[in-house]
Amino acid sequence: MVPQWIIEKKRDGTPLTREEIEFFINGYTAGTIPDYQMAALAMAIYFNGMSIEETAILTEVMMHSGKVLDLSSIPRPKVDKHSTGGIGDKVSLVLAPLVACCDVAVPMISGRGLGITGGTLDKLESIPGYRTDLSTEEFVAVVEKCGCCIIGQTAELAPADKKLYALRDVTGTVPSIPLITASIMSKKLAEGIDALVLDVKFGQGAFMKTLEEAQQLAMNMVEVGTRMGKGIAALITDMNQPLGRSAGNAVEVAETVETLRGDGPDDLLEVVIALGARMLMLAGRAEDNLQAIEQLRRQLTSGAALEKFRTMVELQGGDPRVVDDPGILPQAPIRRPLPAPSPGYIAAVNAEEIGRGCLVLGAGRQRTEDRVDHAVGVTGLAKVGQKVEAGDPLLVAHARNEDSLQQAWPHFEAAFQITGTAPEPRPLVVDTILPRREGPHRDAGSQDA
Amino acid sequence: MVPQWIIEKKRDGTPLTREEIEFFINGYTAGTIPDYQMAALAMAIYFNGMSIEETAILTEVMMHSGKVLDLSSIPRPKVDKHSTGGIGDKVSLVLAPLVACCDVAVPMISGRGLGITGGTLDKLESIPGYRTDLSTEEFVAVVEKCGCCIIGQTAELAPADKKLYALRDVTGTVPSIPLITASIMSKKLAEGIDALVLDVKFGQGAFMKTLEEAQQLAMNMVEVGTRMGKGIAALITDMNQPLGRSAGNAVEVAETVETLRGDGPDDLLEVVIALGARMLMLAGRAEDNLQAIEQLRRQLTSGAALEKFRTMVELQGGDPRVVDDPGILPQAPIRRPLPAPSPGYIAAVNAEEIGRGCLVLGAGRQRTEDRVDHAVGVTGLAKVGQKVEAGDPLLVAHARNEDSLQQAWPHFEAAFQITGTAPEPRPLVVDTILPRREGPHRDAGSQDA
Repeated sequence: MVPQWIIEKKRDGTPLTREEIEFFINGYTAGTIPDYQMAALAMAIYFNGMSIEETAILTEVMMHSGKVLDLSSIPRPKVDKHSTGGIGDKVSLVLAPLVACCDVAVPMISGRGLGITGGTLDKLESIPGYRTDLSTEEFVAVVEKCGCCIIGQTAELAPADKKLYALRDVTGTVPSIPLITASIMSKKLAEGIDALVLDVKFGQGAFMKTLEEAQQLAMNMVEVGTRMGKGIAALITDMNQPLGRSAGNAVEVAETVETLRGDGPDDLLEVVIALGARMLMLAGRAEDNLQAIEQLRRQLTSGAALEKFRTMVELQGGDPRVVDDPGILPQAPIRRPLPAPSPGYIAAVNAEEIGRGCLVLGAGRQRTEDRVDHAVGVTGLAKVGQKVEAGDPLLVAHARNEDSLQQAWPHFEAAFQITGTAPEPRPLVVDTILPRREGPHRDAGSQDA
Repeated sequence: MVPQWIIEKKRDGTPLTREEIEFFINGYTAGTIPDYQMAALAMAIYFNGMSIEETAILTEVMMHSGKVLDLSSIPRPKVDKHSTGGIGDKVSLVLAPLVACCDVAVPMISGRGLGITGGTLDKLESIPGYRTDLSTEEFVAVVEKCGCCIIGQTAELAPADKKLYALRDVTGTVPSIPLITASIMSKKLAEGIDALVLDVKFGQGAFMKTLEEAQQLAMNMVEVGTRMGKGIAALITDMNQPLGRSAGNAVEVAETVETLRGDGPDDLLEVVIALGARMLMLAGRAEDNLQAIEQLRRQLTSGAALEKFRTMVELQGGDPRVVDDPGILPQAPIRRPLPAPSPGYIAAVNAEEIGRGCLVLGAGRQRTEDRVDHAVGVTGLAKVGQKVEAGDPLLVAHARNEDSLQQAWPHFEAAFQITGTAPEPRPLVVDTILPRREGPHRDAGSQDA
């Protein structure tokens, strides 16, 4: 096989065979096929797409480019969640311990944020001592002991994706549904899980800007997961305003603790419960959505979920006192409220502007090598539909210094829209995508929507 | 400027600015923009194309990526010809000395063949001693002395094209009209010429398979040349059968000598005269097509063109006796005629099959590093429309050994189609593309068609 013939085939719109995809991806991972041929193929895929069949093969080949974890020592169903990410998205931190309370193992390998705010790992690393760089053995041991563990990507899992993702980032080939699907699914399935729930976000603050794009990506991923013999479901959630009332790193850990204690913001709780219920159903731990929701709520009110979080933090080397006193988290020297310029109702909170403001404060990274300031971010975010008087705080900015605060301020000011009448309430979970030919799941799904 | 933003812009169908094209191509030539980003951009250009404006800028930037020859020491108009190439195409060898007889300088920088038969340089190098690797100074000196010179590409001229062409070859981005246009035109215009005539071939034996594709490429090149202030015209010629009666290297030099002596095959002569006439008109050496044709015929019948060829060969270090005795050229040990299987008329001669057969004999190269066997090829090719008896030779194969001959034979057998009735004659020069708003040229052009 000759690499350029495979590129030409895709360029001319002919589907690639398993042998061709294997030859190309394995050659690329091994370094016998150079970056420039992979870049040309990725751009041809951007334009001509890939069938579900091709995407499933690509996913499988990328998943097997490295080690696939063996979690057979854990005698419980293994289920994970993936989110396409958004501003204030601390769902993983709440969800992993919560679902782990229901006799489900949650072996979660997560990413770092690039652009806008930090990722799940950055947030957890604001807890003093917390290690996200466990070895595979340590990771499996923590999951065995407490049912959940959240670490960073290792070089052993899906190295093809690691290499391809870095290339796509600099060759304009990121926004391709088959490439996104294979990237997410190959990494997640290399964790050795039985099932996966996806949180596909859309809106200004998300990677997918429209509902239609998010639905298309979700359907693609659900089909691929099903073909690979995994239980799978996807929720489409609205990311037109930040999730919860905080965005940053330490401030999101504090909000996680609040939520696990039962005092969290409604929107965050709604997304956590909807995703958790899907995970329980896929794990066979609940027969329907209502039963699953009840179970999850019980773990929150009993304090079991918060205790599970404490155990996970401790097993990963973090200071468990964070559960009792979030005051031990890094604190920013400056806290400044943004006053509402006029009375009325919050009509919109632009998640992208909030994210940019946080980035300027230092909560995220613009380049891979940038360091994140764990202390900075925003809290007390006003929510869409909320009534405010002039001068009421729309958010409280936590800043390292006056300089960064002044640069962030215009973004925060631009984020809020206030109107005279209350806006129509919008649903947060707008759609549920389930595998075809699975009647019961589809029925249960319609209860979410 | 960030390279991936430029890739994304082209990917999304927005035309690039001069600054963006300059930044990208100059960065690529200098090595600050890597191959993988260039490959992604080339594929995006393949899919989304480029406007004439963008293509002209790309051509100009590539042309200025290296030295542009200064031929101001030669007080005659400088005109060159470019052909997209085909089987048996020895036009350059006849045309350069012929046009140089009419007080026009022809500074020709040519390519080597890749695939099928050898290129112009390979053919010339079958003349003992002939050097195609003259320095720029030697090249200019030969043009000054005899009016024409044919050499190979140097590293000094259009290095951006050299680098990009090698990359396109292995990334499936060769067949893109703006990229082909910029590649051809940047190289040719770096020769410091005043005008250029293009021979755009279509058919099985050509790079452009259909008339429409050839016309589109020709129109693109004519527009770009005009925008760059050069005289330009393009002929669209049929390459559905090989040009002339021979294909290979030494055998084509022998046919060149015959043609310059006035005994050449009609089709070759027709293409040479049509292109030469355009060159004389662009150089201001003839007022119309008929006057130009008369001039050219006079140089052939007087023997002046053959003498010019002898001088050029001698000035480039070649053995001038080749003009008197083509027997000094390398000869293949085996000569075998292919007999017609049945009587009738030749309905088709598949140029691609003839080319493949010659390649198997060793007349071309499959990889850049392959060596060409100058002696092998075919002669005495039967032409479409010719009447044959069973057993009449359809061609004579010149082979190094029985082994290669046996491998080539099925290609030669498959090339000929014989029918009971004479086929409709087809024109060889099927269209002439001239710059818009140039009334007189357009009128003259219609005489060719």
